[in-house]
Amino acid sequence: MSQKHNIEDIAHLAGVSRGTVSRVLNHHPAVSDDTRQKVLEVIERLNYRPNFSARHMRTDNSNMVGFGLIADEVITTPYAVDMIRGAQEALWAQGKVMLVVNAGYNAEMTQASLEALLERRVEGIIYAAMFHRPVELPQSAGQVPIVLTNCFVEDRSLPSVVPDEVAGGYAATKHLLSKGHRRIGFINLGDPERNVPPPLPASNGRLAGYKQALAEYDIPFDPELLCYTKQTPEDNYRLARQILELPNRPTAVFCGNDRTALGCYGALSDLGLRVPDDVAVVGFDNFIDISGGTWPPLTTVQLPHYEMGRWAVEYILSGQAASGEPVQHLANCPLIIRESA
Amino acid sequence: MSQKHNIEDIAHLAGVSRGTVSRVLNHHPAVSDDTRQKVLEVIERLNYRPNFSARHMRTDNSNMVGFGLIADEVITTPYAVDMIRGAQEALWAQGKVMLVVNAGYNAEMTQASLEALLERRVEGIIYAAMFHRPVELPQSAGQVPIVLTNCFVEDRSLPSVVPDEVAGGYAATKHLLSKGHRRIGFINLGDPERNVPPPLPASNGRLAGYKQALAEYDIPFDPELLCYTKQTPEDNYRLARQILELPNRPTAVFCGNDRTALGCYGALSDLGLRVPDDVAVVGFDNFIDISGGTWPPLTTVQLPHYEMGRWAVEYILSGQAASGEPVQHLANCPLIIRESA
Repeated sequence: MSQKHNIEDIAHLAGVSRGTVSRVLNHHPAVSDDTRQKVLEVIERLNYRPNFSARHMRTDNSNMVGFGLIADEVITTPYAVDMIRGAQEALWAQGKVMLVVNAGYNAEMTQASLEALLERRVEGIIYAAMFHRPVELPQSAGQVPIVLTNCFVEDRSLPSVVPDEVAGGYAATKHLLSKGHRRIGFINLGDPERNVPPPLPASNGRLAGYKQALAEYDIPFDPELLCYTKQTPEDNYRLARQILELPNRPTAVFCGNDRTALGCYGALSDLGLRVPDDVAVVGFDNFIDISGGTWPPLTTVQLPHYEMGRWAVEYILSGQAASGEPVQHLANCPLIIRESA
Repeated sequence: MSQKHNIEDIAHLAGVSRGTVSRVLNHHPAVSDDTRQKVLEVIERLNYRPNFSARHMRTDNSNMVGFGLIADEVITTPYAVDMIRGAQEALWAQGKVMLVVNAGYNAEMTQASLEALLERRVEGIIYAAMFHRPVELPQSAGQVPIVLTNCFVEDRSLPSVVPDEVAGGYAATKHLLSKGHRRIGFINLGDPERNVPPPLPASNGRLAGYKQALAEYDIPFDPELLCYTKQTPEDNYRLARQILELPNRPTAVFCGNDRTALGCYGALSDLGLRVPDDVAVVGFDNFIDISGGTWPPLTTVQLPHYEMGRWAVEYILSGQAASGEPVQHLANCPLIIRESA
């Protein structure tokens, strides 16, 4: 294995950033074919191989220190596995392994998990939440650089990265508007009994984005078209039917997440309505096993778990988490267009 | 917090096993209401609180040692998060935290992950695979007790726990037979071009179970009713339609996994057929975000990820992984009856 060249050499010769080289090495999709080709040619020319061997990791102490991720149930929910992948691929590009512990059960376990990582001399900690929300952390969290992922502390005293929910809700609604839809139902996440969004960034933000897009098209907000689901299959189905059986039926439904879209598909099937010809459907999450599995495949908004994981690692490795002002970075939620809208 | 009593005291006074007490403490579903009540009464009477504090973990070295799980991509696939939960809850009941590393990328990373765990003095290692298959491990894997989860080494020289695929395929088919179905389509996992199952325990085993159940009802196996999907949404939809448009249409379809069932739901909707009245559907995996999200909710077979994770930990903690003959434990795949069959 050639050890003469490093990732900076590749970046320099290919005329790209170090991050781009990392992404090529890690088969990250967000690299154009041209760029990928250019980087791979340099890699081949230099006979470069990433310096990842276990022997290297053992002898070089600076790389030996792991990297901790405390997952507030995140590890046991399928939605957020991309966050772990994003963080780990960014680390692995530097020859570092990540230790993951799950603190999802209670405050004692969070404390124990944190101690377990600190005692193993991690150089940074990512604290990840299952859904976008405020969290409270033990005092000892401040001993090493930390970034909160998919969550934040109320006083914003620690850096965090969270989805740009407003932009996501806007993108979904704008897409439907641009396709000519003017009556767009919205099954938001919340409590069907209380007709207001819960105090959660996902519900509030997506609703704000929905309203913002409607306003841009001079369409007045119609409260009849908005409802809230607790996300049980029964709720999702029932509320979808309620909206679809309005006398003046909407031609499109924006579903608060991909599971809600499953209930909406069921209601449409029972009503004999086709997706997207009769009613267009957009989801949220891009939870691939649903959105890439339904028929027709679901147009949805991507929760940027991969990007958030990567951003958190890069922010720590850059030294900013230790020394800079705490920021809250909003990660983009891109629209993924498939066939349902 | 009372430290006078331990989990053995609870078990003794409640007249149950230590494992049952653990399960009650961990809110595991596999405990009857009566037993749970009995255990909780003893816990309340003794004012017992599990001895989980971080302080305890730090001062007692025997509990300080973490527990490693190397995940062959498992951590980045939503299907297997229950495996991590099962392992961790079994450990947490003993005040132990689990370190998880992801080795999913290549042999070098597997080696590096293994070294990272060994150097952190873990007392045992679980090696988990994303799907049920044979694996190869680095030599150094033998330095601490190890259990392979959802995988095995070809020569069976290491203990492993895997799903009982045959029993799962049998349970799905038997359920449909018991409901009166006699023509049962089977969309198995594999390659549509080659009309044989791939050499994977999931495909082979479930097919064997399907045939076994048919034989029990004296129904000859009809190759026309069997097809294979690569699990793309297009494949799933197309193959479901192919089976559903046979001149002598089956009244039930057994889908090789829950994603396949999504394509089958789409085909049934397009054909104007109702689930389960016109055609019954059974899935496999019990991937809750699909099976508990579809309308109607999906009857399916549970992949026993939680049980496998728990079994692996308990086998190591019991000392058998270190000292006993290597076994292959088959974990039961129970049928989860919802509304689609």
